[in-house]
Amino acid sequence: MISSSKAASVAAVDWGTTRMRVWLLDGAGKVLAERRGDDGLITAQAKGFSSILEGHLAALGAPEALPVIICGMAGSRQGWLEAPYVSVPAPIGAILAGAARIPGQRRDIRIVPGLAQRLADAPDVMRGEETQLAGAGLPAKGRHLVCMPGTHSKWVLVEDGSVAGFGTWPTGELFSVLAAHSILRHSLGEPPKPVAAENPFFREWCLKALAEGGDIGSRLFSIRAASLLQDLKPEDAAACLSGLLIGGEIASANRRYGAVPVVLIASGALGKLYADALGLAGLAVRVVDADEAVRAGLAEAARENGMIAGNGVAA
Amino acid sequence: MISSSKAASVAAVDWGTTRMRVWLLDGAGKVLAERRGDDGLITAQAKGFSSILEGHLAALGAPEALPVIICGMAGSRQGWLEAPYVSVPAPIGAILAGAARIPGQRRDIRIVPGLAQRLADAPDVMRGEETQLAGAGLPAKGRHLVCMPGTHSKWVLVEDGSVAGFGTWPTGELFSVLAAHSILRHSLGEPPKPVAAENPFFREWCLKALAEGGDIGSRLFSIRAASLLQDLKPEDAAACLSGLLIGGEIASANRRYGAVPVVLIASGALGKLYADALGLAGLAVRVVDADEAVRAGLAEAARENGMIAGNGVAA
Repeated sequence: MISSSKAASVAAVDWGTTRMRVWLLDGAGKVLAERRGDDGLITAQAKGFSSILEGHLAALGAPEALPVIICGMAGSRQGWLEAPYVSVPAPIGAILAGAARIPGQRRDIRIVPGLAQRLADAPDVMRGEETQLAGAGLPAKGRHLVCMPGTHSKWVLVEDGSVAGFGTWPTGELFSVLAAHSILRHSLGEPPKPVAAENPFFREWCLKALAEGGDIGSRLFSIRAASLLQDLKPEDAAACLSGLLIGGEIASANRRYGAVPVVLIASGALGKLYADALGLAGLAVRVVDADEAVRAGLAEAARENGMIAGNGVAA
Repeated sequence: MISSSKAASVAAVDWGTTRMRVWLLDGAGKVLAERRGDDGLITAQAKGFSSILEGHLAALGAPEALPVIICGMAGSRQGWLEAPYVSVPAPIGAILAGAARIPGQRRDIRIVPGLAQRLADAPDVMRGEETQLAGAGLPAKGRHLVCMPGTHSKWVLVEDGSVAGFGTWPTGELFSVLAAHSILRHSLGEPPKPVAAENPFFREWCLKALAEGGDIGSRLFSIRAASLLQDLKPEDAAACLSGLLIGGEIASANRRYGAVPVVLIASGALGKLYADALGLAGLAVRVVDADEAVRAGLAEAARENGMIAGNGVAA
């Protein structure tokens, strides 16, 4: 790792609310080394952003002058430095330029702008997903609907390479606050086990939510009642809640954007749940790996901001 | 209070999850004395149900042999004694009989049964609201839709004096867990100020939710975005969330039960919010005071279980 790190051209950082990932990339965007940590925004607010970042870079053997490109909540108002928002509609290629430089650092450290939708009736913001989007390799032409699931799932309508608009469904956060703090905690187990897409309750409750146009409120308490009256097991109760919330998100996004094919930018178990749920909704799905997309987007951001040479999008 | 308490025929207790209320009633159901406390189910699990109840009764000067009739979560699986559920459909008059007697007490202490809806696709339960319903003075004939708002709002369809079915919308709980534990806490203030029905944001967001058939997930994050992009004030953000959730509940219940006149059993500020929201939905509303309804229902339960004499429903 130490020897390969000498060939690094940039450190790429995805710095979210609860976790962070750091990669050393070469000039072509290839991964030379990686670290993952639980020291997201919340931890960094207490410990200091600079010392956390330098700790990870030192562990990776990064040279002292290696530049760093960051996306995510580190650029929010509660973050290291509030990076400006780019207002939509905006060409995807133009979003990554204009990264905000952190002052007073020996390195060149910059944070990618977020996106803002300044509509009176549908204000919205994102931080981090714009970089995934830019690295997803979307075709330059045509109309594409992109789903990026997570704590705050983002759905983005892309038209001829421009972000036309987007919306947020806080599905992951609803799951976690209801599982930890509502009466459903008595039904789901504390903490709930991970939900498997193969669980028939996931499928059944996803279909219920899809049939009801995104109305989730009428079904939430049924999970508690099914525990009391039907001996619903905790792992199945968690599958019910996950299916209800993900199905509800998809039904709601369908109502807003129409039932069009979806580019799903996701990884791992969450990606499987969404791919299955989109299939249940009868939507065609193309899956792009979220980790690869954010790395490619960060490499592109480093190029756009003149931190490394080259033009091509990383593989 | 001590002198009037000697005329008491029964102590009536509404024992919920977070608070309890105790009234001494005469044989006609008239209130002689009242106490309110924060020692609901959660506190009682730790301190003991008997000692909390006896403490309130002693403070009210209740005679040692005074019988006690209880409704609410004290009768749940996590409560003092699990009172059985009556399965719906069931005549309202038949629900209150068969209260479960607490063993090993010097007094005659009984807990009113809850209601269970044992439908495979829509299981549901209630504890406490069945007593409000029985005390609401509904006409013996006709079809009535009853809304009892709260932590877990209940909507009940009553046909010719029988509970035909019911549903739960956990609107109050969604508000409190989102306000305390989600990203919205940064927007609403910690804790949020009480929401006034006169706040134009309450009205506006209620109308949005009513127009979207109960889909609340698509709008939740907009409240956060409006704080960041439009300087939405904390008290207005709380009004947005309240309007969204209450409007969503009404839209969802409308889809299930049809847009029929509503009997709203509620009190105070929450009753005002629901009355206004039901009006925005274009529904005719008749308001019944929730405190009076639960007292009348408890007096009726005491009579039905032979704890006091008489037949009439208390005024």
